[in-house]
Amino acid sequence: MKNVVNRHIPEVLLGESKEIYQGKYYMNGKVYQKDAPRSRPFVKPVDSKVLGSIKEVCQKIGVRDGMTISFHHALRNGDYVMSMVTKVLVEELGIRDLTIAATSLGEAQDLIADYIEAGYVTGIQTSGIRGRIGKVISAGNLKTPAIIRSHGGRPRAVATGDVHIDIAFMTAASSDKQGNAKGTGGKHNFGSMGYAIDDSRYADYTVIVTDTLNDYPNVLCTVNASDVDYVVLVDAIGDNQKIATKEARVTQDPRELMMAENVANIIAASPYFKEGFSFQTGAGGPSLAVNRFLESHMRQKKVKMGFAVGGISKAICDLQDKGLVGHIFDVQNFDLAAGDHLEKTANHHEISVSQYADPFTKGAFVNLLDFVVLSALEIDTDFNVNVITGSDGVLRGAPGGHPDTAAGSKCCIIVTPLTRGRVATVCEKVVTVTTPGDCVDVLVTDYGIAVNPLREDIKQWLDEAGIAHVNIEVLKEKAYSLVGRPSNLEWEEEVVAIVEARDGTILDVVKKIKPLILD
Amino acid sequence: MKNVVNRHIPEVLLGESKEIYQGKYYMNGKVYQKDAPRSRPFVKPVDSKVLGSIKEVCQKIGVRDGMTISFHHALRNGDYVMSMVTKVLVEELGIRDLTIAATSLGEAQDLIADYIEAGYVTGIQTSGIRGRIGKVISAGNLKTPAIIRSHGGRPRAVATGDVHIDIAFMTAASSDKQGNAKGTGGKHNFGSMGYAIDDSRYADYTVIVTDTLNDYPNVLCTVNASDVDYVVLVDAIGDNQKIATKEARVTQDPRELMMAENVANIIAASPYFKEGFSFQTGAGGPSLAVNRFLESHMRQKKVKMGFAVGGISKAICDLQDKGLVGHIFDVQNFDLAAGDHLEKTANHHEISVSQYADPFTKGAFVNLLDFVVLSALEIDTDFNVNVITGSDGVLRGAPGGHPDTAAGSKCCIIVTPLTRGRVATVCEKVVTVTTPGDCVDVLVTDYGIAVNPLREDIKQWLDEAGIAHVNIEVLKEKAYSLVGRPSNLEWEEEVVAIVEARDGTILDVVKKIKPLILD
Repeated sequence: MKNVVNRHIPEVLLGESKEIYQGKYYMNGKVYQKDAPRSRPFVKPVDSKVLGSIKEVCQKIGVRDGMTISFHHALRNGDYVMSMVTKVLVEELGIRDLTIAATSLGEAQDLIADYIEAGYVTGIQTSGIRGRIGKVISAGNLKTPAIIRSHGGRPRAVATGDVHIDIAFMTAASSDKQGNAKGTGGKHNFGSMGYAIDDSRYADYTVIVTDTLNDYPNVLCTVNASDVDYVVLVDAIGDNQKIATKEARVTQDPRELMMAENVANIIAASPYFKEGFSFQTGAGGPSLAVNRFLESHMRQKKVKMGFAVGGISKAICDLQDKGLVGHIFDVQNFDLAAGDHLEKTANHHEISVSQYADPFTKGAFVNLLDFVVLSALEIDTDFNVNVITGSDGVLRGAPGGHPDTAAGSKCCIIVTPLTRGRVATVCEKVVTVTTPGDCVDVLVTDYGIAVNPLREDIKQWLDEAGIAHVNIEVLKEKAYSLVGRPSNLEWEEEVVAIVEARDGTILDVVKKIKPLILD
Repeated sequence: MKNVVNRHIPEVLLGESKEIYQGKYYMNGKVYQKDAPRSRPFVKPVDSKVLGSIKEVCQKIGVRDGMTISFHHALRNGDYVMSMVTKVLVEELGIRDLTIAATSLGEAQDLIADYIEAGYVTGIQTSGIRGRIGKVISAGNLKTPAIIRSHGGRPRAVATGDVHIDIAFMTAASSDKQGNAKGTGGKHNFGSMGYAIDDSRYADYTVIVTDTLNDYPNVLCTVNASDVDYVVLVDAIGDNQKIATKEARVTQDPRELMMAENVANIIAASPYFKEGFSFQTGAGGPSLAVNRFLESHMRQKKVKMGFAVGGISKAICDLQDKGLVGHIFDVQNFDLAAGDHLEKTANHHEISVSQYADPFTKGAFVNLLDFVVLSALEIDTDFNVNVITGSDGVLRGAPGGHPDTAAGSKCCIIVTPLTRGRVATVCEKVVTVTTPGDCVDVLVTDYGIAVNPLREDIKQWLDEAGIAHVNIEVLKEKAYSLVGRPSNLEWEEEVVAIVEARDGTILDVVKKIKPLILD
């Protein structure tokens, strides 16, 4: 069965309730019933919920085969907790058929790839897959198809019960003995703990994993003691120096700077660029550089930003410190400076990931975005974007908030070089659709700008501002003329991953690649 | 069937799942499944959720006979919203069989008594009943028995689905057009909006009723836009000058001062009176006066309070301003000064009512209370307390957080004069049990102190401190010698109200009184 973005979805995946993607607002206003976790009240006061080890927590809860455990990835590449907990479950307790529902997975969790290969971990649900986990899943070694969801799609799935979490293991920079926990106040601060909030409310059990136990009450906490079963103290939750990746730098590349300047010019030319506008940008080089060029437009036109939202990096914090940003709504921090800023700044607020991006709330922050600036691994002539599979078809990316901000914003701008190495970024058909074309408005490359035909209004104000743009076909042909047409990837029939649209419909599938290229 | 506090509970009320009260920790650790509200996602961005009138909101939602609507009572005697909304439903839309699930009801809702008598309102669930509503229910005019729950018992009932809220109408001092709402920032501020938080998450529809629409974003909000369907702007939500009642004064009555001093002496003599102790007191005269005497003990012994919790009045805010209280956790404000203090003070925090007192969370604040000082309409020789029915058997009180703090605290002290007018406060058998005797530790009257026989440890430290105490029988006999033995009330068979223990078991019932005394 083909969906709205022209992808064939095997009917066996649809079952009774699953639907194919039918456009960005298809689920608007449809009634759904929220999930109902099974909880255990602490009627009798306990002096402390602290247990001595992860193993002890697991035994106290009574872990069993087939459980779904959840984690958040605020420590990003520096996270120790996911591997640590999974190791205890697999190696010390011999638990099988584990499903790991994480907000993202990367190289820090390479150990889990071993447990997939050995058949201990049989389900993966995540907003990002990088490192060895992506390779072993692409090789067909995970027993069930991985489910890839956006940052907004994940809390939707948690709230609707599409994924029911048995135990949420929540990394916290600090906690008190009752479980009041946060991403600051500890030895390895990571800033916002926004990804943890929803899981703490929907998991049957919630366990805080921390390396810093503070005096009661550990305020202002993100996860409340009233949602926490147990607290476990470990040696170290991670290495917070690894939160920022090499991409989170200020670029000096003239091509990237040129693209960033063009993005800022487009924003400044739009009718949405007025006092109180809202804005989000990613952590990549060109996206970050947009902040700089935007600043001069803001000063020139005497326009201030109402709020910035999303994953937050130092660049936007600096803009706020200069008085140019009213509020920052922060679901995760891309660098330590931003986490520190969150702790110290009155109008820099922590939010939950469902408040941020969940389409099944009564209005997420992304719904009020004027602009979002995003990157892409690939974008095709239907404006469909791929941020999950590489040009070799292997899982190595993260939709994150991409599909959510694209769908919610008034103007979604993709900024990407036309080619990367010998690969065309603008192409005829992306390997995998992760953000559907009906959510993407403008493409900015180093060889020109293209506007989605759905947005004649944007073409008009670009014309009025004298900003040149071309048909996206022109950019694709240019790319192919530079690096050649890509040869078709060869797939086997086996589906290794399902890409859910943010509303839970099926957007695309990733199949097992042949021959599989393992580095 | 008789329960643990020796009350006969008609078996017809028990049904399949309802149980009789079996002790304060009976439900500890028992698994329950949380309720699953039916929600409607706002996938498509809307610029504003503001509708023109309560009637328009009701029509948009599609109100129908038999619905359950919820309200909170933060504006206390000054609330306009409950009557306003119910009037629209009844008089403009002709809705019948309404159940009103309020956090408390009083004279401000006298209009609803008319709708009960006329058969439009057929169900009442509340933590307090005062004014005409109490009288018409006691007269047997409500079609179904009213259900009385403590402040902690109500969010438990909401979370478990014992009461499923169709529409939560939430009074807010201010909101923005997306529904970010709070108890401050408006024309009629009331401070903490803690009673609203749980309802906003468990109601099928959440509607903000406010008289002040602020620019987006209305931070720091209590109820989040992501939980709000509609916002309606009304002329005035209430008269916030009526939040404080005449009881919330500093007493000059020498008897009350003497009792307050004795309470403070008991606290100071206890092993729990040490650095970081926790404390709650009510808003009544003698309770408030305890703060004053406690201050001198704290200064003398160089001991500071870790946290105060509960309904908060100016007295405890003043203690915090003097540096004697670490944190205040605030679910409601008993006067305007306390609400103002909440807004301006870093370590004065707003909490939800489930965090405050819900026995079915994983640890409410009341679980960590060292001391609570409470009043009583009556207390019997089994230490059972009545705070719901007057000596005439008519509903005119409010359990509020009484049963929750009594159950959670290490030392629950009841302070009450031995007699009021011609009525014995200490008696053989209270008219209605609202806080079971197994939760009450010490009784302080103007004629002496009594300790619950369950607490031999307390007797011991009182003896060591030279604080005299007597058997509670002695106090009862003294009371009877002063005002005479009360004559038995005469009841009909009809149950007009069910008093649920905080864990949802049945603690007592209130029957129709004969002859009914209506002023």
